[in-house]
Amino acid sequence: MSRAFGFSVKAQDGMARTGEIATPRGTIRTPAFMPVGTAATVKAMHPAAVKALGADVVLANTYHLMLRPGAERIAELGGLHRFMQWPHPILTDSGGFQVMSLSKLRKLDETGVTFQSHLDGARHLLTPERAVEVQSLLGSDIQMQFDECVRLPAPDAEVERAMRLSLRWAERSKKAFGAKPGHALFGIVQGGASPVLRIESAKALTQMEFEGTAIGGLAVGEPQPVMLAMIETVIPHIPEQKPRYLMGVGAPDDLIEAVARGLDMFDCVMPTRAGRHGLVYTRHGRLNLRNARHAQDPAPIDPQARGAAARAFSRAYLHHLVKSGEILGMMLLTEINLSYYQELMSDMRDAIAAGRFADFTAETKAEWARGEHAATT
Amino acid sequence: MSRAFGFSVKAQDGMARTGEIATPRGTIRTPAFMPVGTAATVKAMHPAAVKALGADVVLANTYHLMLRPGAERIAELGGLHRFMQWPHPILTDSGGFQVMSLSKLRKLDETGVTFQSHLDGARHLLTPERAVEVQSLLGSDIQMQFDECVRLPAPDAEVERAMRLSLRWAERSKKAFGAKPGHALFGIVQGGASPVLRIESAKALTQMEFEGTAIGGLAVGEPQPVMLAMIETVIPHIPEQKPRYLMGVGAPDDLIEAVARGLDMFDCVMPTRAGRHGLVYTRHGRLNLRNARHAQDPAPIDPQARGAAARAFSRAYLHHLVKSGEILGMMLLTEINLSYYQELMSDMRDAIAAGRFADFTAETKAEWARGEHAATT
Repeated sequence: MSRAFGFSVKAQDGMARTGEIATPRGTIRTPAFMPVGTAATVKAMHPAAVKALGADVVLANTYHLMLRPGAERIAELGGLHRFMQWPHPILTDSGGFQVMSLSKLRKLDETGVTFQSHLDGARHLLTPERAVEVQSLLGSDIQMQFDECVRLPAPDAEVERAMRLSLRWAERSKKAFGAKPGHALFGIVQGGASPVLRIESAKALTQMEFEGTAIGGLAVGEPQPVMLAMIETVIPHIPEQKPRYLMGVGAPDDLIEAVARGLDMFDCVMPTRAGRHGLVYTRHGRLNLRNARHAQDPAPIDPQARGAAARAFSRAYLHHLVKSGEILGMMLLTEINLSYYQELMSDMRDAIAAGRFADFTAETKAEWARGEHAATT
Repeated sequence: MSRAFGFSVKAQDGMARTGEIATPRGTIRTPAFMPVGTAATVKAMHPAAVKALGADVVLANTYHLMLRPGAERIAELGGLHRFMQWPHPILTDSGGFQVMSLSKLRKLDETGVTFQSHLDGARHLLTPERAVEVQSLLGSDIQMQFDECVRLPAPDAEVERAMRLSLRWAERSKKAFGAKPGHALFGIVQGGASPVLRIESAKALTQMEFEGTAIGGLAVGEPQPVMLAMIETVIPHIPEQKPRYLMGVGAPDDLIEAVARGLDMFDCVMPTRAGRHGLVYTRHGRLNLRNARHAQDPAPIDPQARGAAARAFSRAYLHHLVKSGEILGMMLLTEINLSYYQELMSDMRDAIAAGRFADFTAETKAEWARGEHAATT
C-alpha cells in the first residue's frame, strides 16, 4: 500500500473515467460509492459486511461525532478506524452542512458558526480550524474544508456571500491542515445554481491546490438537469488529475449521469435510509416491500444479483419482516441496497475500462425502464 | 443425517447428561440452547450468523406466525425453514402460552381458546387440533402439545383444573399429530408449584408416549429454588431415554442448575432481548453498556470469548452505539449474548463428557462472582 495520497486515472471513456485513489489505509477504486457511516456506523450493517459488499471507503460525519461521543474521546480510543473497526479509508465531511440543517440557535460570522447541539443543547463553535482539528482527531484519511451551505432557494446575493465566505474558509482550512503525508484535504465548490458563481468558486479553489475537489450544494431538491448543468459548468475549471467528488449524490440514475460527466466519488444516505424504510434498489428499478403485492411472492429480489441477500430471501419474507418492524428486515434491505450500489459502481468501472460506458448506460436504463414485471414474469 | 427422530445420551455425569437429538434436518447437540425466533427471525440476527455461533435449532412461535403472515401462507411458500432461510431443525411452541399473555378477549372452554389477535383484532380459534395443524403447516421438526398456561399466582383448584385440561388436550394433540416420521411431538408437564399435581401430570404424559417431555409453567417469576424443586419432583416420573425440555429458561445460572438436574433443551428470549436493551452476558457476569463507566473503556467485552464481536469491539464503542440508539448496537450485543450462551452450552457438554460437570459449575460460578473488576484489571 502507498504511504502517500495519490490518484491515477486508469482508463477514460468520454468524460467518464476509472482509476484509483491510493492511501496508506488502502486503495479506493473509482468511480467509488461511499456508504454513509454517520455516527461511526453504517446503519444496520456490520462493518465487515460493508467491506465484503465492495465498499473501499466510508463517509463519517464530523458534526455527529464531535457531539457524540466527541472527537477527543475517539482520539483517545485510537481514532475512528479502530473505534468502528473499519481499517480501510474514511472520508469525513466538515460539519458545515449539518450544522446548518440539524443544530439549534446558529450564529454565523466570519470566524465560524456557534451553535447548540441538537442532542443536549450544549454550545459548540465550529470554525475552519476546528473542523480540521476534529477531522484530524478522528484520523480521517480524506478531510473536507469547512464551508457554509445555504438553504435553497436563497437570494443570489446570499448564495454569493456564502460562496465567498466558503472560499475564505477554504484558505483557513488549508492552512490549518498543513502537510499531513498520506492524508488529503478537499476543497468544496459552492455557488448554488449560478454558473458564474460556480466558476468563480472552482477557479479560486483550483489555485489553492487541494488534493481533490468536491462539488457541494447540489442534490438538495433541484431538478436533475440543473444538477447536471452545474457539473458540466464546474468540471472544466477543476483539476483533471485530481479526484472529483459529488457530495450527497444520489439515486442510481444520478450516479450514472455524474460519472458520465467526469465525477469519481459519491456518498448518499439513500441506500441505507431506503433500506430502513422498506425500499430496495435493483437492476429493475426500485421496489417498496411494504406493498401487499409482495406478500405471497416466493421470488427473490433478483436471482442474478451478486449479493447473497437479494438472491436468498423471498419477497414474501422481506415483506413480512418489514410489516412486522423486524430489525432483520432493515438489515437485509440495507444489505441489498448497498450491494446493488456497489455492483453498479463495479459495472461502471468495468464498462469505462472496456470503452463501452455509453452502451452500459443505455442497457442499465433500459433494465430500469422495463421494471418489475419483466423481472418477475 | 437420520431420517427418523431419535435421541441418544452419549455421556452422563450425575444427573447431567450430554447427547444428540437426530432429525432429518440435522443433529441437535444437547444440552441445547434454542435462540427464540418469534416472528420467523431471531431478532437482529442474520440466520447464517445464528448457526455460526453454534445454534443447532431455533424456536418459532405458533401464535405469532399464525397471525402474521399466517400458517397457510408460510406453507404455500414452502414452509418455515425456507421462509426464514434456516435449513436446520425448528421447534415450535403450541401457542398456548402466548394466547394467554398477548391476545385480547379470550374465551376458553373444553374445545380450545377463542381469541382476538393483538395485531388487528381478528377472531381466531386455537384448539389442540388446530395447534398441531398450524405447526405442521409451518413444517416444524419438534412440535409442542396445546396446553393451558395459568397466570400465577392462581388458586390451587385453578392450577389443577388447567393441568387436567392440558392432559386432555395432550391426548387430542397426540391423536391429531398421528405418525409423522422424522418429526416429534412433545407433551408439557404442568401443575404450577404443586408437587402432587406435577407428578400426576408427568405420569399421565409418560403413559401417552410422546417423543419428548417439556416442563412448562416455570420461570414465570417464582424464585429459582421453587423452579429447581419442581424439576427435581418431575424428573423421576418422565422418560429417561427421551429429551427433556425446560420451556422459557433462562439466565445462565438457571441453565447450569437445570442441566445439573437432567434437562436437555432450553429456550429463552433473555439473550436476544437483553441485547436490544444494552445488556450483555459474559464469563464475568452481566454488564449494562448504558452505564457511563464504559464510555472511555477501550477494553473489549471479553478478550477470551470465542465469539468475534466480544473480542473486536471496545466497550466504549458499544456504549456509544447503545446511547445513540444505533441498530448495530442491538446487532452486536445480541450476537455477543447468543455467542456466550452457545459457548456456555458447549462447555457444559464438554464438561459432562469429561465427567467434570461439578468442577465446571464451581469454576463458572466463581468467574461470575469475581465479576467485572477481575475481568478488566
